[in-house]
Amino acid sequence: MSSIFTKIIEGEIPCYKIAEDEDFFAFLDINPNAVGHTLCVPKKEVDKLLDLDEETYSGLMNFARKVGIALEAAIPCKRVGMTVIGLEVPHVHVHLIPLQKMANATFQEKVSLSKDEFEEVAARIKSHL
Amino acid sequence: MSSIFTKIIEGEIPCYKIAEDEDFFAFLDINPNAVGHTLCVPKKEVDKLLDLDEETYSGLMNFARKVGIALEAAIPCKRVGMTVIGLEVPHVHVHLIPLQKMANATFQEKVSLSKDEFEEVAARIKSHL
Repeated sequence: MSSIFTKIIEGEIPCYKIAEDEDFFAFLDINPNAVGHTLCVPKKEVDKLLDLDEETYSGLMNFARKVGIALEAAIPCKRVGMTVIGLEVPHVHVHLIPLQKMANATFQEKVSLSKDEFEEVAARIKSHL
Repeated sequence: MSSIFTKIIEGEIPCYKIAEDEDFFAFLDINPNAVGHTLCVPKKEVDKLLDLDEETYSGLMNFARKVGIALEAAIPCKRVGMTVIGLEVPHVHVHLIPLQKMANATFQEKVSLSKDEFEEVAARIKSHL
């Protein structure tokens, strides 16, 4: 069965898309630690980051860098943090999180956004890509 | 003034070293989230991950991948997580953390090791490099 992220990439589940190329896809986390919290995933469905082949790993990290730089320009923050955990969804995903404080990085606090707010945030990030 | 990580790299402050090449350095976090928690840093002292030039960023991520694969082989865990936050020490550092549960990734729990235990863990990781 396809992972929830594959369903998002294939358009079966809607998302607030940020960026896409041949191999990678970025979209807003729907349960964000902070405004602008974005996930970058390889289209290839692999569970663990360190099981990615070297080329896909490097490609994912470079894709995340480009998205992260746009995010840092779009969303006021001290810096953008990057986290790969993966204990919940078995499909590699890089969290890019605009940080104001440690709690934004530790998944202890969440923020709520309306559909309009998600759309506005996505448009703002995309304008920097 | 040099960062604490530059002092570690230059040997002014002792550490449990894991790996080193011309541009990068890895050592055990002295206040670990889990046994084997390792930091990978560029020798170039830059504050923010996304301010690294593209070559140094890619080099750091590839160095972290090699260390992470050794860590995953050396330390029993569900997977190795990767986190870059950087709100405390203004010198880019990639956390590689052997994960058993979410709390290992969120900096909410810490483990204590003796000097002998740190040395044994470092030797075990190095044997997989």
